[in-house]
Amino acid sequence: MVIVAIKQLYNNDNEATKVVTIQGWVKSNRNGNKVGFLDINDGSTLKTLQVVYNVENPAWKQLIEVTTGSAISVTGEIVLTDKAQQPFELKLQSLDFLNLADKNYPIQKKAHSHEFLREQAHLRSRTDTFLAIFKVRNQIAFAIHQFLQNSDFIYLNSPIITANDAEGAGENFIVTTITSDQYEKDFFGKKAALTVSGQLNAEAYAQAFKKVYTFGPTFRAENSNTTRHAAEFWMIEPEVAFADLESTIKLAKDLVISVVSNVLENCPAEVDFFNQRLKSTEQSQDNLMKRLAMLTKAESYKVLTYTEVIEILLKAKEQGKEFIFNDIKWGMDLQSEHERYLCEEVSKGPVFVTNYPQDIKAFYMKANPISQDTPERRTVAAMDLLVPGIGELIGGSVREDDYDKLIANKKQFKIENNDLQWYFDLRKSGFAPSAGFGLGLERLIMLITGINNIRDVIPFPRTPNNLTF
Amino acid sequence: MVIVAIKQLYNNDNEATKVVTIQGWVKSNRNGNKVGFLDINDGSTLKTLQVVYNVENPAWKQLIEVTTGSAISVTGEIVLTDKAQQPFELKLQSLDFLNLADKNYPIQKKAHSHEFLREQAHLRSRTDTFLAIFKVRNQIAFAIHQFLQNSDFIYLNSPIITANDAEGAGENFIVTTITSDQYEKDFFGKKAALTVSGQLNAEAYAQAFKKVYTFGPTFRAENSNTTRHAAEFWMIEPEVAFADLESTIKLAKDLVISVVSNVLENCPAEVDFFNQRLKSTEQSQDNLMKRLAMLTKAESYKVLTYTEVIEILLKAKEQGKEFIFNDIKWGMDLQSEHERYLCEEVSKGPVFVTNYPQDIKAFYMKANPISQDTPERRTVAAMDLLVPGIGELIGGSVREDDYDKLIANKKQFKIENNDLQWYFDLRKSGFAPSAGFGLGLERLIMLITGINNIRDVIPFPRTPNNLTF
Repeated sequence: MVIVAIKQLYNNDNEATKVVTIQGWVKSNRNGNKVGFLDINDGSTLKTLQVVYNVENPAWKQLIEVTTGSAISVTGEIVLTDKAQQPFELKLQSLDFLNLADKNYPIQKKAHSHEFLREQAHLRSRTDTFLAIFKVRNQIAFAIHQFLQNSDFIYLNSPIITANDAEGAGENFIVTTITSDQYEKDFFGKKAALTVSGQLNAEAYAQAFKKVYTFGPTFRAENSNTTRHAAEFWMIEPEVAFADLESTIKLAKDLVISVVSNVLENCPAEVDFFNQRLKSTEQSQDNLMKRLAMLTKAESYKVLTYTEVIEILLKAKEQGKEFIFNDIKWGMDLQSEHERYLCEEVSKGPVFVTNYPQDIKAFYMKANPISQDTPERRTVAAMDLLVPGIGELIGGSVREDDYDKLIANKKQFKIENNDLQWYFDLRKSGFAPSAGFGLGLERLIMLITGINNIRDVIPFPRTPNNLTF
Repeated sequence: MVIVAIKQLYNNDNEATKVVTIQGWVKSNRNGNKVGFLDINDGSTLKTLQVVYNVENPAWKQLIEVTTGSAISVTGEIVLTDKAQQPFELKLQSLDFLNLADKNYPIQKKAHSHEFLREQAHLRSRTDTFLAIFKVRNQIAFAIHQFLQNSDFIYLNSPIITANDAEGAGENFIVTTITSDQYEKDFFGKKAALTVSGQLNAEAYAQAFKKVYTFGPTFRAENSNTTRHAAEFWMIEPEVAFADLESTIKLAKDLVISVVSNVLENCPAEVDFFNQRLKSTEQSQDNLMKRLAMLTKAESYKVLTYTEVIEILLKAKEQGKEFIFNDIKWGMDLQSEHERYLCEEVSKGPVFVTNYPQDIKAFYMKANPISQDTPERRTVAAMDLLVPGIGELIGGSVREDDYDKLIANKKQFKIENNDLQWYFDLRKSGFAPSAGFGLGLERLIMLITGINNIRDVIPFPRTPNNLTF
C-alpha cells in the first residue's frame, strides 16, 4: 500500500496514474444503482478527492451505506478526468478500513453557524472553515519561531505558575490545591497565580542572551464576553537587551511582515478561501488579500506619538465625528473605537502609537525626559501597534533601567507584590537597556484570516462559564 | 557603529581587522598600571572576547573600576594575536555604555554550586553552564518543531485550563477565582484544573488533520522532591490517525534521532562543554559524546515486550542481582531502577518496552487480543521509551477506538469525570485508529546535556514550596 496525502496528488500531475491508498474522512456519499461517489478529505488540504465505486465492487453494499464523517481507507487507481474543478479521481479497487460515523453525526454537508460549531469544538476542524483556520494558526506559530530563530533569538519557557503580577492590573486565576485562602499551607507555601505575561522573566534572560522570546499561554480572569477576549490565550514576547524604542518598532514590523509573507507563500489556498468567504458574507468592506498585501510592505506602517493621535481625534471631533467615548483629551486611554478610527479611516493601515502618558501604562516602562514646555505631561517610551479590523495587536516599551526610579514607580502604581525584589535587583546586576513587546497570537490569526471572534481561532476556547472539552 | 555578535567574530576570520562595537556583560576585569583586560560575553557563544584598554584611553578611570557582571558597550579594532586560545582581541577605542553591577553581584569568577545558582535563577544564565543549558534547550525545542513541521504535523495549542483529567491519576492543581469549593459560583461555573496532558484534545484534532502535536506546559501537584519531577514542565504530544504501535515507535525513534543530530550539528561547542564537564565531575561513567552518537543510530533502539522484560529481570535475580524493589513478577509496574538496569546494563542503549499489563496503564489504551495460552494476562498496545541515565523518556499507546470498550474501561478504571462525553463521542464520529505519545521536554534536555537535576534545565523551576521568581 502506497499511502498518499491528497495534497500530494494535487501537487504532482505525474503521479496521476499510480495505484494509491487514501486515508481520510467522508464529506459526502452519492450513489445510484450502479455507481457511487465518495468525497474524501484527509486534512492535508482543503480539497477533497472523489472516489468512484461501482456495483461490481465486492464492497458495494458496505459502500452505499457509508455515512458522512466516516473514517475510511481506500485503494484505487488515479485516473484523469476532463473536469476543471477535479482534474482526477480515484477508481476504487479495495475498501481497506471503514469506521462509520453515527447517522446523527453533527457536521453534515450544509452550512453550519460558527455558534453551532463552537458547541462541536471536538469536531469542527472537519469543516473547511476550521480546517483552514487551524492550518493557518499552525503556519503563523511556526513562522514566528522561524523568524525569531533566524534572528538569533533564544526561545525561553517563562513560568506559567507565578507569584508575580506583571501588569499590576486585571483579574488573576489562583492556582491552588486547597479550598481556603490559607496559602501558607498550600503547595507552594504562598499564593500562586496563572501568569498574565512572561515579560519580567524574559527581561532576566535578555540580560544574558541579549535576544530572547517567550511563546506560551497567558491568562486573564476578566469576566467579559467580547469577541476579542478569552480567559486563556497565547502570547509571544520578544525581549532585547541593548535595544531602544526605534529598534523595537523595527523588530515588531519585521516580525509581522515576515509572518504575513510566510502565510501568503505557504497557505495560498487557505488565504484564498478566507478572502472569498469575507467577500460573500460582506462582513468586511476590506478585501482580505489587499489587507495582507499592505501588511507585507514596510512603508504601510506609520508612526505617530500619542500626543499627535489626540490632536487627530480632536480635529475629527471638530469636523463632526462623534465617538461613543467622545471626551477626547490628553491623558485619556485610547478606546478600541479610537484605535480603529485611526488605522481604518485616518492612516488606512497599521499605525505604531508611541510615547503614551505614564499614568495609563505599566509601572516598568521607562519615562521619557520631561519637555520644558509641557512639564505636567509625563510620557513613557512605549509603543502599541494598531491594525485595521483588530485595534491593538502589539504592546511594548523600553523598560525602566534605573533601580531608584523603578522603586518609585512601584510606590506610585501601588504595586504591593513583595515577590518582585529579584526583578528590581536586575537593575543592580549590570542592566543593559532593555525593550520588548507582547504579540497576541490569536489577534494575529484574526488579522490574517479575517475571522472576527477569538473563540473561532482557539482550538478549545475558555471564556466565562465555558469549560467544555 | 557596526554592532557585531562575538559568535560572528569567531566564525569569520576575515573580519579580524574591522572596527566593531561589542555589547555584552563583563566576566572579569584585570588591570595593572598601564594596561587592562576585560573579558566580555554577549550570550551569542560560550566564548568571551578580550578587550584591551590602556592608560591613555580617556575612559581609563572608569574602565579600571568596571565590576564583574557589568553591562558594557565598547568600540575598537579587532587585532590578531598569536595565542591559540584567543586568536584575536579588541583594542579599545571608546567606551559607549556602562552600567556597573553592584560589588556584591553574586556571580563572581569562581565555581558556584548548582544549589547556590538555583537561588539566583534570574542571573544564573550568565554562567557558562546555564548559558549552555538554555541555548541547548532552545535548540531542542526548535528542532522538535522543525522535525514535526517537516513531517506535515499541525501544531495544536491544547487547552491549559481543563475540566478533564487525562491520566485519571496524580494530583491536579485547581484553577479558581474563589476561596471555597463552591465551584458552581466560580469563573467557569465548574471545577477547573491545570492540564496534565493535551492528548485527549489532540485526539480530536488528529481526526481531522491526521497528524497533529501539542507543545505546551503540563502540571502535576505531586508533593515529591526528586531530581526528575517538577510541578510545571513542558510536553510534546504527537497524535496520529490511521497509526498503529509500530508506526508510533518509528515516529518516536525518528524524532529523538533527528533532535539529537540537530543539537550535535548546531551546538557543537555546548555539547563539548557538557562532555568535558561530565568527565571532570565523574558524575557519569558514560561518555556523553558516545551516548549522543549512539542515540543518532536507528539500530541502537531495541524493542522488548513487557513480558520479555519481566523474564530478563527474573533471570537477573536468579543470577544474584538484587533490586530495591525485588518482588519481580508479571503485573508489577516497572520502577526506575528496573528501567535503568534494562537500558544501562542489559541493552546498553535505548529500549522500547511494549504491551504492558492493562491494569497499570491508562483507561484510554487499546487492549491487545487475549492470547489463548495466557487468558488472565490482559495487555494494552502501549510503549515506553527508556533511555540510559533517565529511565522513561516517552510514553505512548494506541487509543481504544471502540465506544463500548472505552465506556467499560471508564467504569473499570473508576473514572468519575463526567466532562469526557465529547471524548467518548469521538468514537461514534468516524474514528480512525489513533496512536501517539508524550515526550517530556526536560527529560530530553537532561539526556542530551547530562545535567541530572530537572531544576537546572527549567529557567524558573516550580517545585513544592518553591515559587520565587
